[in-house]
Amino acid sequence: MTEFELIRRFTAPAPRRGTGVVLGIGDDCAVLRPPPGELLLATVDAVVEGVHFDARFAPGDVGWKALAVNLSDLAAMGARPLWALCALAVPEGADPRRLAAVGRGLAACARRHGIALAGGNVTRARELSLTVTALGSAPAGRVLRRDGARPGDVLLVSGTLGDAALGLAPGAAAALARRQRRPDPRLALGRALGPLASACIDLSDGLAQDLGHLCRASGTGARVELSRLPLSPAARRALAGAADPFLAPATGGEDYELCAAVPPGRVARALAAARRLRIPLTPVGVVTRGRAVVLEGPSGARYRPARAGHDHLAPHRRKPAF
Amino acid sequence: MTEFELIRRFTAPAPRRGTGVVLGIGDDCAVLRPPPGELLLATVDAVVEGVHFDARFAPGDVGWKALAVNLSDLAAMGARPLWALCALAVPEGADPRRLAAVGRGLAACARRHGIALAGGNVTRARELSLTVTALGSAPAGRVLRRDGARPGDVLLVSGTLGDAALGLAPGAAAALARRQRRPDPRLALGRALGPLASACIDLSDGLAQDLGHLCRASGTGARVELSRLPLSPAARRALAGAADPFLAPATGGEDYELCAAVPPGRVARALAAARRLRIPLTPVGVVTRGRAVVLEGPSGARYRPARAGHDHLAPHRRKPAF
Repeated sequence: MTEFELIRRFTAPAPRRGTGVVLGIGDDCAVLRPPPGELLLATVDAVVEGVHFDARFAPGDVGWKALAVNLSDLAAMGARPLWALCALAVPEGADPRRLAAVGRGLAACARRHGIALAGGNVTRARELSLTVTALGSAPAGRVLRRDGARPGDVLLVSGTLGDAALGLAPGAAAALARRQRRPDPRLALGRALGPLASACIDLSDGLAQDLGHLCRASGTGARVELSRLPLSPAARRALAGAADPFLAPATGGEDYELCAAVPPGRVARALAAARRLRIPLTPVGVVTRGRAVVLEGPSGARYRPARAGHDHLAPHRRKPAF
Repeated sequence: MTEFELIRRFTAPAPRRGTGVVLGIGDDCAVLRPPPGELLLATVDAVVEGVHFDARFAPGDVGWKALAVNLSDLAAMGARPLWALCALAVPEGADPRRLAAVGRGLAACARRHGIALAGGNVTRARELSLTVTALGSAPAGRVLRRDGARPGDVLLVSGTLGDAALGLAPGAAAALARRQRRPDPRLALGRALGPLASACIDLSDGLAQDLGHLCRASGTGARVELSRLPLSPAARRALAGAADPFLAPATGGEDYELCAAVPPGRVARALAAARRLRIPLTPVGVVTRGRAVVLEGPSGARYRPARAGHDHLAPHRRKPAF
């Protein structure tokens, strides 16, 4: 199969037209019209076979996740998603039907969030990978950064935590495996939090680590009560009798939920906005002075997880962005 | 080495600030201010160890080329380059000094063209690769596309052809090897051609193939006189006595020169603009009715190169963009 045929098969299912696409796939660059007066937000992230996905992932899951993890970065900054580019690396002899199914997964995620696949490229490599660039926009005053948290802000976490990490276990419940394979970026919630939160980050590497990034950028500390971490029914079942029931919720990666710091006077509005969107949003702690990120167990004792803090280059560490 | 240390080393030499960088490396997304009223141009391209570069490339060449091939896409569309994101894939046990040198090469190319490295990510993979997203802008009326060529337009080629392909040969002259390893995208020329050319493409896969793309997109044919292809002194020496002296100039990839179709009434202005920029620009043929791309040898006979038309997925095929 030539690369032209491969590109055709991979891109055929994707939405190519959309807001501001002047010229999409087929020329040297995509030509895009940014929303007047707004800022452009850009992020890139790769999913690599054997690192970010394995044979347990259906091809469609791979394509979905490659786009979803990028859209989660846009969500974390309060952006509206607009366009994606996808660099595809394909091993010699790859099954064209499998690649077409990967393309359908990416297309499904793009359609769900109303964005267009505006360009990309394909190359040979030893393992399959997709490197997606996602572009979005936001009004200048609505961009959520990591570095704006202030002592006293309330820490709010969306959805439920630990599901994606638990979804990696052999025999994991379908609901947990689905969180691992088809993450659902919190774009609408991110935009709703744009005018309310003082800082935000998406939870790709686990709450302990990502909250650490937010606090370091903001020059603050944080205190989290582990008993308040939101758990799904499936996670509760999986964690019943676990040696460390807080390990997955506090340190498990890839939930792609949002963690926002919201000034106390705006918490009610943030919670109301989440209710309107039917997205759970749970206060789990506060931003503190100092530099320490303290996780408190139910007894009030400081929690020291077995493996908080990951090397993102280790297998199944997900979103080492810079 | 943790990924944070690796990111620090890789990105340290790169220019991070620049036109419109509101927030660069360090958050979930780069936040960028597009030039008001202009269109955004976006392209992505990967260079992969063993496919696009090998041990003959110094690490700095790899970083330079990864960015340069993307900037060439911006050049082909008449854009001003603004920002780049870089997704880095690193094999286990990679030498941190080598990665730092790759970063310095990328930084050197970014500085040369006045752009900022605004973001990126790092992941494990089996071979080293850099997937760069380049972003630029152009006024709406100045974007050069592939599909605007009209019969009678004159085909102009910048610089010299065949050097990069000849630079792959063992013992190639330093000038040729340098064209292969440190391509120099024709950004200023692309912008100068913006208001003059009816179509343009950059020569990543060789004139025969890339002109074919331009003609297919435009619904035209083309006739090129091979004896008019511009050759460097080093290429002339390398080709002296070659079995097929047109093979490298007509079909060799990776020169990253521009091929523009310019209406006859504007050719003098295009040539004058190139002279001002001190970039050779050579008429090599014309756009024709029909669909055939005809390469004419010195005798006037139709040329049939041994291997015109590449599978971009074969080793050392370079820029399979979509």
